Amino acid sequence: MNEQWSRGLEGVIATDTKISLVDGQNGRLIYRGYEANKLSLTSSFEEVCHLLWHGSLPDADQLIKFNEKFKQHRTLPPHIITILKALPAEMSMMSVIRTCVSALESPFFSWPPTVDQAIVVTAVIPVIITSRAAYLKKEEPVKPDPSLNHIANYLYMLHGKQPTDTHIKALTAYSILTMEHGMNASTFTSRVIASTESDLISSAAGAIGAMKGPLHGGAPSEVTQMLNEIETKEKAESWIKKKLENHEKLMGFGHRVYKTTDPRSEALKEMTKQLAGEDPWLDLAYYVEETALRLLDHYKPGRKLYTNVEFYAAAILKAVDLPAELFTPTFTASRMVGWTANIIEQSNNNRIFRPQSLYTGPVPFS
Amino acid sequence: MNEQWSRGLEGVIATDTKISLVDGQNGRLIYRGYEANKLSLTSSFEEVCHLLWHGSLPDADQLIKFNEKFKQHRTLPPHIITILKALPAEMSMMSVIRTCVSALESPFFSWPPTVDQAIVVTAVIPVIITSRAAYLKKEEPVKPDPSLNHIANYLYMLHGKQPTDTHIKALTAYSILTMEHGMNASTFTSRVIASTESDLISSAAGAIGAMKGPLHGGAPSEVTQMLNEIETKEKAESWIKKKLENHEKLMGFGHRVYKTTDPRSEALKEMTKQLAGEDPWLDLAYYVEETALRLLDHYKPGRKLYTNVEFYAAAILKAVDLPAELFTPTFTASRMVGWTANIIEQSNNNRIFRPQSLYTGPVPFS
Repeated sequence: MNEQWSRGLEGVIATDTKISLVDGQNGRLIYRGYEANKLSLTSSFEEVCHLLWHGSLPDADQLIKFNEKFKQHRTLPPHIITILKALPAEMSMMSVIRTCVSALESPFFSWPPTVDQAIVVTAVIPVIITSRAAYLKKEEPVKPDPSLNHIANYLYMLHGKQPTDTHIKALTAYSILTMEHGMNASTFTSRVIASTESDLISSAAGAIGAMKGPLHGGAPSEVTQMLNEIETKEKAESWIKKKLENHEKLMGFGHRVYKTTDPRSEALKEMTKQLAGEDPWLDLAYYVEETALRLLDHYKPGRKLYTNVEFYAAAILKAVDLPAELFTPTFTASRMVGWTANIIEQSNNNRIFRPQSLYTGPVPFS
Repeated sequence: MNEQWSRGLEGVIATDTKISLVDGQNGRLIYRGYEANKLSLTSSFEEVCHLLWHGSLPDADQLIKFNEKFKQHRTLPPHIITILKALPAEMSMMSVIRTCVSALESPFFSWPPTVDQAIVVTAVIPVIITSRAAYLKKEEPVKPDPSLNHIANYLYMLHGKQPTDTHIKALTAYSILTMEHGMNASTFTSRVIASTESDLISSAAGAIGAMKGPLHGGAPSEVTQMLNEIETKEKAESWIKKKLENHEKLMGFGHRVYKTTDPRSEALKEMTKQLAGEDPWLDLAYYVEETALRLLDHYKPGRKLYTNVEFYAAAILKAVDLPAELFTPTFTASRMVGWTANIIEQSNNNRIFRPQSLYTGPVPFS
C-alpha cells in the first residue's frame, strides 16, 4: 500500500465508464460519444435519457414507447402522498425528495437495477416537487397532462398553465446539460452504494443527500442570491469589488475540472439569448458576468476563472420562473438520469468499493 | 493522471482517520488506541460511543450525562409515527429505517455535524425498529424504560420484558464490535456525502442504503439461513460438502481484510460461550464452524479461510431472540456510531470527494 494519497481522491481513477467524458482541457462534455452541448439544443429530455441509459439515441418507435413509459409514472402511490403531507413544513425540498424517493422502495426495485426502474424514479421527481409545493400552500397539486412530455409537464404542474415553447426549450437545455458529469460526489456516491448490490432506490437516495450539500448542488441558489443582492447594473461593480477585496468566493465562477470555459455554460448562454428580450433579470446576469470576469482578471490575474454552469443555470431557472428553493431540486431531477445510468453500469461489472484509510490515531494503549 | 487503477479502490487510501485501525495482518481492530475486543467485553455501548465520537472514554460524570442524553431521544416525532404506519407492509426494515432517518431532518441537523446530532440519530434507531415491528403486528410499541441503558432498552422494547444480564452482555459485545471498521462501503459513503457539506442526516441515510446491500450488511441473515437449512449436526457435513462441490460461497467464512482470524469473531466466540448452555442453536453453530473449517481446508487448501464476524454475529443475534429480518437493522443500529464519528471527522478537515473516471465509451461522433 502506497502511503502517498490524495485528499478527496483528486486525480485518482475510481472507475471506468462508457457514460460520460468530462474533457477539461478541451472544454468538452461528452455523453456516450455525443457532445452534450449539441444534444441540449436539439434533443428532448427523454431522448437523452435513452442515450445515457441504453447507450444509443432512440429511433422513432423506441421514442414513442419511451415517452409513454414516462407518462405512466406521474402518479404518486398513496403512501407517498401521506408522507408529503406529514413532513414538517420547515423541511427543505431536498430532504423531502430524499425521503420520498427512499419511501418508493418496493419489490419492483429489487437488484439488479434496470432502465425501467430508472424511468420510474426519474419520471416521479417533478411530481414529488410540484405536489409538495402545492401542499405547502394548502392547495391540491395540478394533475399531470398526458399530452405533455417530461419537461413541459414539470413546468405545467409547477405553474398550472401551459408553458411557452421558449421556456420548454430553455429548461430542456438546462436539464440535458446537467444530467451527467463524471465522478462528481453524488454520482460517485450512487456507485459506491450500488457496489454493495443494494437497490437503485438506496443509491438514488444517497446521491440526493450528496447533492444537497452546498459544495455540490447548493451553488445555483447562491448565484441567485448574489444577483438579487446586486439588484441593478449600477451596483454590480462595487458589490463584486467588495467581495473580492474581502477575499470572499464569487459564486458562479471557476470550476475544479474545466480549465477553459465550461462547455455547459456556453450552451446555456446560447439558449438564454433567445430569452433575453423577455426578462430584465437576464440582462442583469449578462452585465454581472462581464463585470465579474473583468474584475476577477484584475484581482486574481492568471487564475483563469471562467463563468461556470451554475451562473447561467441560475439565469435560466429564474427565467422559467422557478423559485430559488427549487433550483437544487430541479438539478436533482435531471441528475437522477446520470445517477441511474451509473448505477446500472456499476451493476454490470461490479466490485464493492472498499478503499483503505490511513490510521493516524493513538497506538494501542494496552 | 495515472491510468493504472484499482476496481473498488482496493488498496487506495481515501482518507486519514484517528477513529479506527483495521490491522489485518495482526488480526486486530483498534478504536482510538483501544482494542475493540477488550472494549466489547468490559464497556457499555454508551462508553464506546463517547470514545469513538469524542476520542476518549468518559469519566463518571460524563457518562451519567451521556446516558441521560441517549434516554431523552427515545421518543419519535409525530410525523415519524405517521410514516411508520403509512409505509407498505412489504417494505424491508432497512428501507423503513433509511426513510425514517431521512425524515428526521430538521434545522437541528444543520451543518456542521455534532456529537449531539449523532446521539439523537443513534438513540432513535432501536425505537424506529421496534415501533415498526409492533405496527406490523397491529400492536402499540412498547414504551421505552428510562431505567435501562441503550442496549437493554432495545431488547426490552423488542420483547416487552426485562432482558437477562447475559443477553444484555451478548448484544452489547456484538454492538460494540460492529460499530466501526475502517473504510467499508457504508462508512465510505457517509464520508463522501459529508464531504459536500450536506447534513449528518443525508450522510446517515446514504450509509444505511449501502449497508442494505447483500455484499455488505446482508451476510448475517444468510448465515442464519444456512444454519436453518443444516438444521442438525448430522446433516452438516453433507450440506457443506455439496455447497463447496458446487463452487458456491459459504457464508460466514473469509474476509477481504483479515488474513488471520477475524478479531471480532474471537470476542464474539468468547461471549457466546457464556450463552452456550442456554441454546441448542449455539451448539449447532459451533459444530458447523468446526466442520466448515475442516472442509474448507480440504476443498480450498492454502486459502486460509477463517470464521468471520458474521458467523458468530448470527449466533449471538439468534441467541438474544432477534428474528433474522432484524439482523442487518441491528448491525445498522451499531454501525451508526462509526458512521457519525466519520461524518464528524470528515467535517473537521474536509475536501469534497471528486475522483476521476476513465472514459472507455465511443469517441465523439461529430
